[in-house]
Amino acid sequence: MQNAESSAVLVAGWHRMGYRYINNNQSLMSKELENQIRKLHGMVGNAVTSGKYILFGAGSTQLLNAAVHALSLHHNASSPPTPVLASIPFYTLYKQQTDVFGSSNFKFEGDASLWMNNSDSNNTNLIEFVTSPNNPDGKLNKAVLQGPNAKAIYDRVYYWPHFTAIPASADEDIMLFSISKLTGHAGARFGWAVIKDETIYQRMTMYIGVNTMGVPREAQLRALKLINVVLQGRGREIFEFGYKTLSNRWENLSQTLSVSTRFSLQKIGDQYCRFFHKVRKPSPAYAWLRCEREEDKDCYAVLKAANIIGRRGGVFGAEDRYVRLSLLRSQDDFDLLLHRLNQLVLEEDKIKTMPIM
Amino acid sequence: MQNAESSAVLVAGWHRMGYRYINNNQSLMSKELENQIRKLHGMVGNAVTSGKYILFGAGSTQLLNAAVHALSLHHNASSPPTPVLASIPFYTLYKQQTDVFGSSNFKFEGDASLWMNNSDSNNTNLIEFVTSPNNPDGKLNKAVLQGPNAKAIYDRVYYWPHFTAIPASADEDIMLFSISKLTGHAGARFGWAVIKDETIYQRMTMYIGVNTMGVPREAQLRALKLINVVLQGRGREIFEFGYKTLSNRWENLSQTLSVSTRFSLQKIGDQYCRFFHKVRKPSPAYAWLRCEREEDKDCYAVLKAANIIGRRGGVFGAEDRYVRLSLLRSQDDFDLLLHRLNQLVLEEDKIKTMPIM
Repeated sequence: MQNAESSAVLVAGWHRMGYRYINNNQSLMSKELENQIRKLHGMVGNAVTSGKYILFGAGSTQLLNAAVHALSLHHNASSPPTPVLASIPFYTLYKQQTDVFGSSNFKFEGDASLWMNNSDSNNTNLIEFVTSPNNPDGKLNKAVLQGPNAKAIYDRVYYWPHFTAIPASADEDIMLFSISKLTGHAGARFGWAVIKDETIYQRMTMYIGVNTMGVPREAQLRALKLINVVLQGRGREIFEFGYKTLSNRWENLSQTLSVSTRFSLQKIGDQYCRFFHKVRKPSPAYAWLRCEREEDKDCYAVLKAANIIGRRGGVFGAEDRYVRLSLLRSQDDFDLLLHRLNQLVLEEDKIKTMPIM
Repeated sequence: MQNAESSAVLVAGWHRMGYRYINNNQSLMSKELENQIRKLHGMVGNAVTSGKYILFGAGSTQLLNAAVHALSLHHNASSPPTPVLASIPFYTLYKQQTDVFGSSNFKFEGDASLWMNNSDSNNTNLIEFVTSPNNPDGKLNKAVLQGPNAKAIYDRVYYWPHFTAIPASADEDIMLFSISKLTGHAGARFGWAVIKDETIYQRMTMYIGVNTMGVPREAQLRALKLINVVLQGRGREIFEFGYKTLSNRWENLSQTLSVSTRFSLQKIGDQYCRFFHKVRKPSPAYAWLRCEREEDKDCYAVLKAANIIGRRGGVFGAEDRYVRLSLLRSQDDFDLLLHRLNQLVLEEDKIKTMPIM
């Protein structure tokens, strides 16, 4: 039996587990999964996919750079690399990737707003990462650079009803999503891009092909099963659970910090959501905490001293007066975070009410 | 029930399916899989892993570029990019990747042998891809460039007993393997590097992290199950089946072409194999066919006219007088290939014996 299994593995491998899906035009992608992704966006109403291409990648991670590659490809070899920009605070990987890959075609140049009135911006292509909702502060960002040479990559991984109101179906030229932020299965490394332009789609496909020869079938199968679970419940239950959990956490956190003069949170308003058909409260994935005291320039260190581990503002291109706290951990982790923050806030009062020596 | 499933998915995702293995020091890699890979190499005797690092990637594909990145990283920005070289014929992806990624740190420069006496080679770092057994011709290549500045990346994906004799346990500084060539499960996109130097390991780890944040857990689980099947039978059955199949195919092909003056095959000799403990016949993954007639400069076209689809020599940096034929397809495909080649060879005789008009 064991012997039979062993050669059966090899036969199965050679015949049926090759690089390509024989029932989908030798594509590296499952057609069924693509169809379910389109259905999902239609049901949630968070993205227009009709008439657009869908491309799978290793999380949004790989697709970020595939998009930068595609938008900078026909760059003239003699001119400087295409600037890659983002609004501060921005997701740290945008900078890390462009730095590590060291391409001669593009270069991370930081704050997009500094390029709004740049005289070059009419001649040179500009690539802008727009994260909406933004990591770390949850804001529904829009591109700040306009004009025919400004190309935006919309990182839409948090644009699901557990993290934000869905005011409209997003319809940008390049939009990125991931299973990590939809169901939490970050370890499956599965993401997808929704792409309007055929040439950009083909360049990104080429990049993914040469980089990893597509996405593992096992990850595609896992994503299919997960998306089918979401679709079966018409999404209501998973998004309601997620929204309830995260909006409760946000409310508790806001209450805890409402009496503090030392720490402040980003402002997010209530907004009408077309998925829930009602006005809903904030439920961001992260808190973007600011240390308000002049001397608390290193907010990360202030929190760390109280055993609270965040991510320092500098990582997001911002001042270290800011820290990102994740609200996506387990309930135990969140309760501990709240408890420790509460202790810190209580100490503020102690100091205030202490008699002057 | 459906509702419960739906929120259970999200809870499971948040708590247990994150990026990292909590039982392996928050690594992106499964420790159990790493251990089984070491056991596998020990059992087969094809690679020394003791005292070396193991890194997972998306097939060997992603690891190829991770290695180039690591070896070219501390390149001085003002000097020219590090040359990436290979012996002809070489696997086409080496060139494609370096071209597509357009890095300012490295550049594909083709034939390694042209750099053997290059005066620069003592000053400049050189990166040489060594595929052993070679794709396309199955030869057990060794690095042609020597000296302190010559860095070799050994692509060892075909170094298993179904494709070649194992004369010794490979012990190079960077060696790449993949599940695709071990069990045929190319669609799982799982490969691993065996790396001697800690700095190179760390740079490659950084590259994989920033590129895709590791390899999907689903692909790691699949690889673990497959390797366990191979280990259970102590490898004998799967490798014997593979060797028998491929050596039979090679023998049939050789016989068919032995009467041809139009087509020739690469020469591969019998060799002692330390896995099978005996001298064994050739069993390569590919045939590297040469069209011998002066006028058959486009061998691909000659074969295509007879409905035989190969890959043209130019793709491997060689003359188009060569074509690579895959011997890894299903038995039906191989039988058809043999039949059509036989027809072509029979036509040679017809032409020879035709009366001159």
